[in-house]
Parts: sequence; C-alpha cells; structure tokens
Amino acid sequence: MSFERLGGLIAQKKNPTVAGLDPRMDHLPPELREPAERDGSLESAAAAILAFNKGLIDALADVVPAVKPQLACYEAFGLPGLAALRETMVYAASKGLYVIADAKRGDIGSTAEAYADAFLGETAVGGSVHRPFPADCVTVNPYLGSEGVLPFVERCRKYGRAVFVLAKTSNTSAGELQDRDIEGAPLYRRVAELADTWGPEYVGLVVGATYPAQLDELRQALPRTFFLIPGYGAQGGGAEDAAPGFGPDGALAIVNSSRAITCAWQRSGLPWREAARAEAIRMRDDLRKALKL
Amino acid sequence: MSFERLGGLIAQKKNPTVAGLDPRMDHLPPELREPAERDGSLESAAAAILAFNKGLIDALADVVPAVKPQLACYEAFGLPGLAALRETMVYAASKGLYVIADAKRGDIGSTAEAYADAFLGETAVGGSVHRPFPADCVTVNPYLGSEGVLPFVERCRKYGRAVFVLAKTSNTSAGELQDRDIEGAPLYRRVAELADTWGPEYVGLVVGATYPAQLDELRQALPRTFFLIPGYGAQGGGAEDAAPGFGPDGALAIVNSSRAITCAWQRSGLPWREAARAEAIRMRDDLRKALKL
Repeated sequence: MSFERLGGLIAQKKNPTVAGLDPRMDHLPPELREPAERDGSLESAAAAILAFNKGLIDALADVVPAVKPQLACYEAFGLPGLAALRETMVYAASKGLYVIADAKRGDIGSTAEAYADAFLGETAVGGSVHRPFPADCVTVNPYLGSEGVLPFVERCRKYGRAVFVLAKTSNTSAGELQDRDIEGAPLYRRVAELADTWGPEYVGLVVGATYPAQLDELRQALPRTFFLIPGYGAQGGGAEDAAPGFGPDGALAIVNSSRAITCAWQRSGLPWREAARAEAIRMRDDLRKALKL
Repeated sequence: MSFERLGGLIAQKKNPTVAGLDPRMDHLPPELREPAERDGSLESAAAAILAFNKGLIDALADVVPAVKPQLACYEAFGLPGLAALRETMVYAASKGLYVIADAKRGDIGSTAEAYADAFLGETAVGGSVHRPFPADCVTVNPYLGSEGVLPFVERCRKYGRAVFVLAKTSNTSAGELQDRDIEGAPLYRRVAELADTWGPEYVGLVVGATYPAQLDELRQALPRTFFLIPGYGAQGGGAEDAAPGFGPDGALAIVNSSRAITCAWQRSGLPWREAARAEAIRMRDDLRKALKL
C-alpha cells in the first residue's frame, strides 16, 4: 500500500514514468478538436478531451505505470471538464494504472479534511459512501504547515494511498520563495524536513528535474522518500537531470512527462496514439539507460 | 474594478464581512439534511447544500457585501457538489454579492493560466467563450512564486477582478513555515513583499485574525493592500483582533465568518435563515464598534 503499489508497477514495467494528462484545446488532434470547436460548448470540448485521454491511456497502459491528470486543465472546462476528469481517473484505474491527481491542494485542517475526502477518502451521505474523485495519490502544497497535510496522511494510512508534497517545483520562479535561506538551509529543505516527520511511507516530495543539484541534495537528505519529478521533456529536463533523484536500482522516484508524450503527434507525423506510445517508449528507454536498468 | 467594487459594497452596507459558505452534512438543518441522508446520493446532498446556500444568500444579501465559498467543501461532494458550487456563485452574483472563490490554487505558469481561466477568466471553445466557475476574486497560494500568481493578475487586469494571496493563514500550524526567519523577516513578510510587486490594485493578502500582531505588522508594511481576514468567530478571533488589519475608516479589509453565521441555528434556537441573519448583523455591529464606524 501507500507507495508500494506504485513501486511495484514501476518495477513490473521497468519504467519510472508517469504520463501527465494536461489537456488543452490546442493539444487535441484535428479529428477531435475540429468537431468540438464547431459545436463550441464545454460539453463537446470535454467529450473530445475524454476521447483523447482514453485513446492515450489505451496506447500507454502497458508502457507506463501511472498517469497524472492536472486538475487545472479540467477545471478550465467547468463541470463537463470535471466529469471528463472523473471518467479519466476511473478509466485509467480500470486499465491497472496508478492515478496521481495533480491538485496541489492545501488549506487549514478542517478544509484539508474535505479535500482529502474528495481525492483520497470517502464522503458519507447518510448510510452511503462515495468516492468523489478517485485517485491513488494527490499533490499537496505545504504552505499551511502540518494541519494542511495530516488530514491527507490520515486517509493514506486508512486507505493505502499516498501524497506528494511540493518541495522544489520545476518552474523558473520556484526559487523566489523556495530557495530563500532559513537559518542555513533553503525553504525547500525545511519542507523536506517536515515531510520526513509526516512519514515517508505515505508522504513523498515533488522535486523538479529542472534543478538536478537540488534533486541530488534532497535524495541524499531523504534516502527513503519517494520523489515525483516533473520538468522532463517540454520543460527542458533530461534523463540525466532526473537521475540524481532516484534511489538504488531506479527505485523511489517517478518522472513526469506531459506535453512531450500527449502532443508527440504534433512533431512526429505519426497518428496521435502511436506518437504518444513511441515517445513514452523512447522516454522509458532514455530513463533505463540513464539509470542503468 | 479590481478591489474597487468590493470596497464600494462594503462602504454601502457599512459592513466589512464576508460570509463563508463552507457546507458539510452536519451543518445542514434537519429539514434539509434528513431527506438527503435518506436518499444517500451525492446528488441529493448537493441539492440540500444548494438549497441551504440559496436560503442563506436570501437572508444575508442586504447585510453582507460578499460570500466566500470554500472549494473543498464542494469537491468533497464530487460533480454534483461542484454543480451546486457553480449555481451558488451565479445565485450570489444575481443578488449583487461579490463572490470570492476560496480555492487556494497555485501551480507553474502554464497551469496557473488554466486555473485563472477557470475562476477569473474565460475558456474558449472555437468561437464560443465560457466562464467555468464565475468568481470576482480567488485565493492563491504563493509557494511557486511569481509564475503561479501573474496569470491570475493578468485576468484581474483584463476583467476587473482580484486575488488574495496567502500570507499568514489563520490556522495553528501556519507558523511552521510562514514564521520561519528569512534574512531578518519571516516568510509571510517575504510573501507580502512579492505581493506588493504584483500590484496592490489586484493582489490582496490573506492574514488571519488569529494573529493580530502580524496583522498589524503587515498593515503597517503595506498601507494600500486589501486584506482578507479569516479566523473570526468559530476559529477564535474577535473584532478587536481583526481591527489592526484595516486601513483608515474601516477600509481595505474584509473579515470572514463561516460556521458562526451558517450554523448559527445550532446555537440560537432560531430558524436557520433568521439565525444566520441575526449573527451576521451581530458581527457587523461588532465590527462597526471595533472600527468606530
């Protein structure tokens, strides 16, 4: 449970890659985009997004162990977009994939309870229980301290799930706060120290491939903690940049690629499913080589 | 525009209160809760929540200038919950209320664009534009730096909206990171400095009434910035605690109360709409007194 299932799927497929599902209208191949744009409704856009995601999942399910839908990209399509998110999560799970909801939620304790129920736990209405957005794992923002994270950890314990807490994110302005020095160590290290107290069985860290030195530093500091490594591919990181984040034998980390996989059809000339699969296989082999697997 | 409309509504009602709409099953009065629990579905729970919110909005619309739905409480009820959120936003706006989406979103730039479209901007599908979750204002987490905030600011400029960035939150563990010293000033001050560069016309700060000394400090440091002050009422802050966050003449701040208003029926013995209205009037008068309005 916790990170064990993810680790098992990575080992089984010999591939520490998570495919980010971050759909936008201009990511969709013309056969899906054009009818949706002619219709113009959020419903038709969401239907095209769901068809795209399902096609990608079919093409990737035996290559990658996990998918990571980015919540913002579904919220931007309103209620139909969130319905497509939910169906994507259910479909991915039905294909044996591990589902990481990239939600970056974080709030005061009583509110964090509700977010944790939404993604990892259950909501009870009378005698019935429901899973609002059924994920195996969710990303969490640490800015509110322990109270914002522990309600998630409680659901991880109860239901065998996991969270990734933002430490050093992959974006250019990440360091404006995350690199500021707090009594001899940067803020992202202080977050990592807190995360260690929350329990490495359930609490991993987000550390960008775009910052390989920090990735190496955090791996040394937290040898048992699972890392989610964004920033590979479209954001500029390579397999060698991600490699320092891994534990022995390519364990304890998973590298995300979103656009480079899902929009591979825009560069390769292949049909979109085949293009995504080819890029995922290329990335897998790139990581295997860098990690000597 | 930006914070002007909110300031105008506060002045008009002589009441710097925002009513937090953070529904849970056990907040609902029996007449709404019991039928939903007998049915057991998320749909019936969401219908009860929407009826509760509409009744509260009707009872409060001439007393308070703004409402603040907490996103987590709707996400916990899945798609029906988010449909109730959207209808609540539209209904509140139809009654002339300013709508603050308490979403605490924050992500890398390209993703922050999508969140900003979801809450403040528009989503285009072909030639049609949509407002996914139509808010006037949204709360944002600063951990990812400028790239996570500026896409929101861009929509604020374009559409006359605003954001509140988390600085010092109202919860007990807020200080675990926010109070850590960075070269002579706590992290929340560094956030406030960044927010000042993002533009006080559009970018306010969240500062809890539970930390009146910090509220005073931040008000002195940022005399033109709008503050959203949570922590009044159920979380323990009083009007005297919130008062240091205001500018001259009770301007430039708004104090949130959620449960103390919406669950007032549980303590007062009054019917729920009347109980909420009575508590909102009591709080308004409490703030007027503390602010000498």
